[in-house]
Amino acid sequence: MPRPVMIGIVGDSGSGKTTITRGLVRVLGDEQVSHFCADDYHRFDRRQRAERDLTPLHPDCNFLDILGQDLGHLRANEPVLKPVYQHTDGTFGAPDYFEPGRFVVTEGLLALYTPALREMFDVRVYLDPPEELRRRWKVARDCSRRGYTTDQVLAELDRREPDSEEFIRPQRHHADVVVSFRPGASDEQNLLDAHLILRDTLPFPDLSAIAAEHEQGGVELAERPGEKELCVPGTIGAARAAEIEEAIWGRMHFASHLRQQRLGEFTVGTDLHRSEALALTQLLILYHVVTARAVVALGGESARPGVEARTTPRLEQVTPA
Amino acid sequence: MPRPVMIGIVGDSGSGKTTITRGLVRVLGDEQVSHFCADDYHRFDRRQRAERDLTPLHPDCNFLDILGQDLGHLRANEPVLKPVYQHTDGTFGAPDYFEPGRFVVTEGLLALYTPALREMFDVRVYLDPPEELRRRWKVARDCSRRGYTTDQVLAELDRREPDSEEFIRPQRHHADVVVSFRPGASDEQNLLDAHLILRDTLPFPDLSAIAAEHEQGGVELAERPGEKELCVPGTIGAARAAEIEEAIWGRMHFASHLRQQRLGEFTVGTDLHRSEALALTQLLILYHVVTARAVVALGGESARPGVEARTTPRLEQVTPA
Repeated sequence: MPRPVMIGIVGDSGSGKTTITRGLVRVLGDEQVSHFCADDYHRFDRRQRAERDLTPLHPDCNFLDILGQDLGHLRANEPVLKPVYQHTDGTFGAPDYFEPGRFVVTEGLLALYTPALREMFDVRVYLDPPEELRRRWKVARDCSRRGYTTDQVLAELDRREPDSEEFIRPQRHHADVVVSFRPGASDEQNLLDAHLILRDTLPFPDLSAIAAEHEQGGVELAERPGEKELCVPGTIGAARAAEIEEAIWGRMHFASHLRQQRLGEFTVGTDLHRSEALALTQLLILYHVVTARAVVALGGESARPGVEARTTPRLEQVTPA
Repeated sequence: MPRPVMIGIVGDSGSGKTTITRGLVRVLGDEQVSHFCADDYHRFDRRQRAERDLTPLHPDCNFLDILGQDLGHLRANEPVLKPVYQHTDGTFGAPDYFEPGRFVVTEGLLALYTPALREMFDVRVYLDPPEELRRRWKVARDCSRRGYTTDQVLAELDRREPDSEEFIRPQRHHADVVVSFRPGASDEQNLLDAHLILRDTLPFPDLSAIAAEHEQGGVELAERPGEKELCVPGTIGAARAAEIEEAIWGRMHFASHLRQQRLGEFTVGTDLHRSEALALTQLLILYHVVTARAVVALGGESARPGVEARTTPRLEQVTPA
């Protein structure tokens, strides 16, 4: 039994972690994926945080060492006893016996904060929407699903801003993929552009052909030392998006059995929408995930170049032409 | 910083675990010892156990795998996030961030149940009083300190008996030291004899001289393959007990700085008593503990013969003549 593939989805509160994750789960299969909430590892309950004037975004407010231990157990295919933080009343409940699936998706505020945490993940994703957009998303969610008022959410956002700046945002530098949805050419709020930074800390498929072929479709690719930046406009047509998806799936032929599910769905309130830019974003993350799975299944340690290279099969072995 | 010395004190409810531990803590120093309660790793709260008709003595009722993981972390000098079972209402509270001291004393019902758990301990002690005595101790404690009625405690003892027999008592076979206090020649209830089984799973000092010298004082030593049995009568005189203690301390000269504290104290209700037989029992356990500490401090893995012998300094190096 190979070890689970570990995926870290990190970003500030309301940055869209669950939306990104949902597509991965649809493709990989719900029974294959276990969701791991890193924000349950709070050191203090709500009352204690208030007494200390600490926000949950502060590293001192979280048992990051224990989180690292537990991620290590999951990575070794062992169960853990996860603490449970109850959002309803801000206290801790009975711990949860958590067994890893073939894929462990960890969502959290600080899951890329320390080197020990970062080492646990095969794929590190950071969600980086513009603040204006994140505030809008957070207000919408916290008011509709968590019972807060708009004033309460906005006041909390202001109170947390220094910690967001000091502790959350610097984690973007440690991600393999940085995802930033931004308003683009369209006035339509549901047609956001996807700006993706793809770092060479993981091997990517050759995207230059994709961008060249579809230049007129508005997909832009910029290359900088150590990273590429890909921009997928929200207005991209379905046919053109399908061509690009096809090209990426073509480079993931060893995972072609996964192709039956649709990517790119998201909700606004209870309305279901679809975004081609989101679908492509999820697909590129999925590429890393299934590549890591293939490496691990062949007895390798990591798809990450330079990491324990001697025990890692070369990617060519995993992805025969 | 050498790893902590791990001591397991195991026995059924009311068997005297806390009494044995208290003497060790007094000698080693409260600030050096951390108490670890293995019975916090319950799988079910009180209501769930009632629904399933399970007692807390059943292995299925406990996360023994997670307990083993956490003991492994403590042994590696790492903190753990320990679940907290609240005896007052039978539910779980906020978990406890637990950092190991130089000595970790683990008390529990099932801490020697699996091979993985047993491997975690440098010294394994099982408390094995006659059932009649244990029932009396448990009634006295649970009624005076935990607010139960005599009928409730006796009914619970009856309900637990099959699990005690099936799961708890077999652990005696895996201990380095089995301690059994029993009524002896004296009618005085506070002058119990100590029957000790000392297994050669740990290296003991040569006790034959002690027994021979003090044969007339009633200390008896029987030798069987793989173990010795020592009987210290509850009526042993203070002077004679002091001579024996002196002889054992003489074999622990590398720990002579610990000699200032008194062993052998126990309480009946709120009355403090002293037993020479208890003091000698605690001292023999202490011998194992300080020997393990010396081995670990010299970079060895274990004082246990045959365990990773190549990395373990020979005991002669630890205890120069």
